[in-house]
Amino acid sequence: MQTISHAAIEKTYAQAYHEARMILALLSQNNMCLVAAESCTGGLLASFLTSIPGASQHFCGSLVVYRDDSKSQWLGVEKKLLDDPMITSVSSQVTETLALEALGRTPEASLAFAVTGHLGPNAPANQLGIVHTTVVFKQSNECDSLTEQLLVPCEPSNPFQTRVMMQHRATLHALEFLRQKIETRFAV
Amino acid sequence: MQTISHAAIEKTYAQAYHEARMILALLSQNNMCLVAAESCTGGLLASFLTSIPGASQHFCGSLVVYRDDSKSQWLGVEKKLLDDPMITSVSSQVTETLALEALGRTPEASLAFAVTGHLGPNAPANQLGIVHTTVVFKQSNECDSLTEQLLVPCEPSNPFQTRVMMQHRATLHALEFLRQKIETRFAV
Repeated sequence: MQTISHAAIEKTYAQAYHEARMILALLSQNNMCLVAAESCTGGLLASFLTSIPGASQHFCGSLVVYRDDSKSQWLGVEKKLLDDPMITSVSSQVTETLALEALGRTPEASLAFAVTGHLGPNAPANQLGIVHTTVVFKQSNECDSLTEQLLVPCEPSNPFQTRVMMQHRATLHALEFLRQKIETRFAV
Repeated sequence: MQTISHAAIEKTYAQAYHEARMILALLSQNNMCLVAAESCTGGLLASFLTSIPGASQHFCGSLVVYRDDSKSQWLGVEKKLLDDPMITSVSSQVTETLALEALGRTPEASLAFAVTGHLGPNAPANQLGIVHTTVVFKQSNECDSLTEQLLVPCEPSNPFQTRVMMQHRATLHALEFLRQKIETRFAV
């Protein structure tokens, strides 16, 4: 059996867990409920949030749309966006659509978060580590949307280790982004 | 910062990763595509599958329905099932519905897997570690559904560690169950 050592991601794991705890505390303080849509993180972001006891009070769940078809079928992303080589599934447009559609399909959610990215192996040239994130806050008549491109640091390793590491790093960066946006919005 | 040591779940993590690899190999061999619906594992099952390079060829994604409302809104689980104290969200009926509905909403999927369970803390009396799993195989005119109740072993620890451990153990058991059911179905 090939074993995957966790020593290499121990620090990232602990930091991501800490971010998840802070996010749930912020959601609790502000009486909010989060919904997520994940592509590249593949459920790992949801797994950190749901590893905190009581998370279901403030976390509706995550739509892990790992294929283009799932993005279209579950969240109504237009095929023309996904098929456009200048846009593709890893883009700010698709990430924003995922967040808005997840929010629209989850009436009890007060904010949505979405993430897409290239975590390798076999990422397009110069695209490895590029991650798009969107946070959308529900408002009375419209939504307030914040989209950013992040760069996840990468390093040479074996391909299996690299993907596991990259998913953990992308999840940590995504959680940090989300936590900062909630903090900023509710700063006194 | 509270840190979460991964040493305690190192072995479970490696085993779950191994199961995920075997499942993707089986799906590839049989040209199948899987969709998941997760409650108690909270995206962790999807994260293991998506940590394998190339997973998107055979894994559509996961609907992480972490609240009762998400189970109803995303996958049409009837409120009367969730609200019935003799059934509740952690039941074979709800797990089977989640799997069938996930399959129905994902045209390219050839099988669906769903999992619900009590992983604590604060599980109902005598319910800690009880997990319900369903695998549904799409057939020409009907679906072939297999549902089982699993018992995830638990041990005393601090409440945070226990939940992280329990989610990893539940994910490992769920992946083993899924792998066995695919192997049995396609055994020569």
